[in-house]
Amino acid sequence: MTTLYEPIAADMEKVCRIFDDELFSDLPVVNDLCAHVATYRGKMLRPALLLLSGRACGGLTEEHLTLAAVVEMVHMATLVHDDVLDDADIRRRQRTVNRLEGNEAAILLGDYLISHAFHLCSSLDSQFASRTIGATTNTVCEGELQQIHHRGDEGLTIDQYLAIITGKTAALTGTCCLLGAHYAGADSDTVAASERYGLDVGIAFQITDDVLDIVGSEQHMGKTLGRDLDKHKLTLPVIHALAHSDAPARRELGKVLKNGVFDRDKVRRLLEPTDSVNYTLQIAGEYIASATASLSSLPPTDARDTLIRMALMIIDRDK
Amino acid sequence: MTTLYEPIAADMEKVCRIFDDELFSDLPVVNDLCAHVATYRGKMLRPALLLLSGRACGGLTEEHLTLAAVVEMVHMATLVHDDVLDDADIRRRQRTVNRLEGNEAAILLGDYLISHAFHLCSSLDSQFASRTIGATTNTVCEGELQQIHHRGDEGLTIDQYLAIITGKTAALTGTCCLLGAHYAGADSDTVAASERYGLDVGIAFQITDDVLDIVGSEQHMGKTLGRDLDKHKLTLPVIHALAHSDAPARRELGKVLKNGVFDRDKVRRLLEPTDSVNYTLQIAGEYIASATASLSSLPPTDARDTLIRMALMIIDRDK
Repeated sequence: MTTLYEPIAADMEKVCRIFDDELFSDLPVVNDLCAHVATYRGKMLRPALLLLSGRACGGLTEEHLTLAAVVEMVHMATLVHDDVLDDADIRRRQRTVNRLEGNEAAILLGDYLISHAFHLCSSLDSQFASRTIGATTNTVCEGELQQIHHRGDEGLTIDQYLAIITGKTAALTGTCCLLGAHYAGADSDTVAASERYGLDVGIAFQITDDVLDIVGSEQHMGKTLGRDLDKHKLTLPVIHALAHSDAPARRELGKVLKNGVFDRDKVRRLLEPTDSVNYTLQIAGEYIASATASLSSLPPTDARDTLIRMALMIIDRDK
Repeated sequence: MTTLYEPIAADMEKVCRIFDDELFSDLPVVNDLCAHVATYRGKMLRPALLLLSGRACGGLTEEHLTLAAVVEMVHMATLVHDDVLDDADIRRRQRTVNRLEGNEAAILLGDYLISHAFHLCSSLDSQFASRTIGATTNTVCEGELQQIHHRGDEGLTIDQYLAIITGKTAALTGTCCLLGAHYAGADSDTVAASERYGLDVGIAFQITDDVLDIVGSEQHMGKTLGRDLDKHKLTLPVIHALAHSDAPARRELGKVLKNGVFDRDKVRRLLEPTDSVNYTLQIAGEYIASATASLSSLPPTDARDTLIRMALMIIDRDK
């Protein structure tokens, strides 16, 4: 996907510099932790969405670069805390902060990242971004809290699942596109269409991620997989299978959910009769179609085409 | 201490309403968690410092009330995450969120509180408070990260200890007084004097807290004590004792630090020959004297007198 970023490569480098400058500390212990977080930097999907939305809606300003660093910092904070919540070992082929330095350092590092994200955001002249980012992180936390509340809940509906992933993942990608359009001076319809694109991309991204947690390759993904069921989290393939399986398969799935025993082969076999993985990928495809449709009102530009191609690549991620 | 707040009682009620309104969610699971956090609301020291500093420096505005809720929210976030870090059972005679709902809910609830603190802060017209609060929470996180980095470090100096507690505790109390003075329209000297008062009060508060962790009564304090040594944290009484004890007592203290075995009676006995508790309380007293001296340049008002009396009560807290 990163080859898609070539038109914004120079801007992305500036974003990385703003990111590093903001996190720099006089304390070596803090810099060491931040250096480890820098190795998590992968696709930089969120800064790319923000910058490309800005370009597609009129062009980039200094604010875009700052905000691209802010959204990446927010995202990194959620990764670091998520790895504590998920008790994960590996992230981007590196040992996680929690595994390397302990849960306490990981909790505090996440706090440090979120604090700096808001601090950096407050450097802008207007409060608009601070308010938008604040409202977004409120929603992200609500999504995560809902998720742990519904752990092991076999009655979780698709709507509830979608509300959870919209909160924990899509709210931030939607905000990236909203901010990109807003700071490019777009009118309110265009800002709303951009946010809708970002929301749909985020939902499709999370659905695909949840599928990969079951069928993906740890080697290709570079992170611990199978954590969802191990942590009693219901995702769309499992919700679909629970609704359409025969009684014995449903009982087996219920046991996996209850005990949190991590056996991905077994789960894959249980999902086969209902074709739940394909069903789920089809739903993700519908969100991608909706995302690209939202961009149809924008003028045809290279940036818009890149956003469309990015959306299409989301469901073809490395398995 | 709360009888001291009578002159600001009506304002404090407004602050509580702003606090509750900001945290209100459409999700019952989130409100339940926030309701539990409301039971932690004790002295509300930080809102009181902010409001009284505002009164002492010219009078209160709507911004003061909002910011008083913001600083309390920041403080609550640190309490909730600290209880996870310290593996604490009891806070204000209630079971902690981590003990009641698990570490995951506690981590996310802390994130929810800090997110809402920044969101509420961004409702103000100017960025001044957002920038100041952001810089302060950066410092708080650095203080906490330094603290866990130096766990079990018998070579920790008094200066390093003071840098840690200035970051993790005093930075926020200093900011409370700074914001109180700033939004009352005080000149820069008065703002600086107010911040100095708040910093010194915070340092004295934390030193006293660290003493109470060793000699205080859990029943009176309403929280788990003895966690510092159990978590290999060096505090001033222990630093002093390590420097002045004979070799056998030093070895014993080293063992307690290394093993993290929680035996407060034993620690108290080890601190007796060097009179380290009294030494530490004397240092706290010096910070209190410095705090009250900082207020001497302010005009004599009831609010200023209350700030002075609050400072004096810090070292006479319930044991």
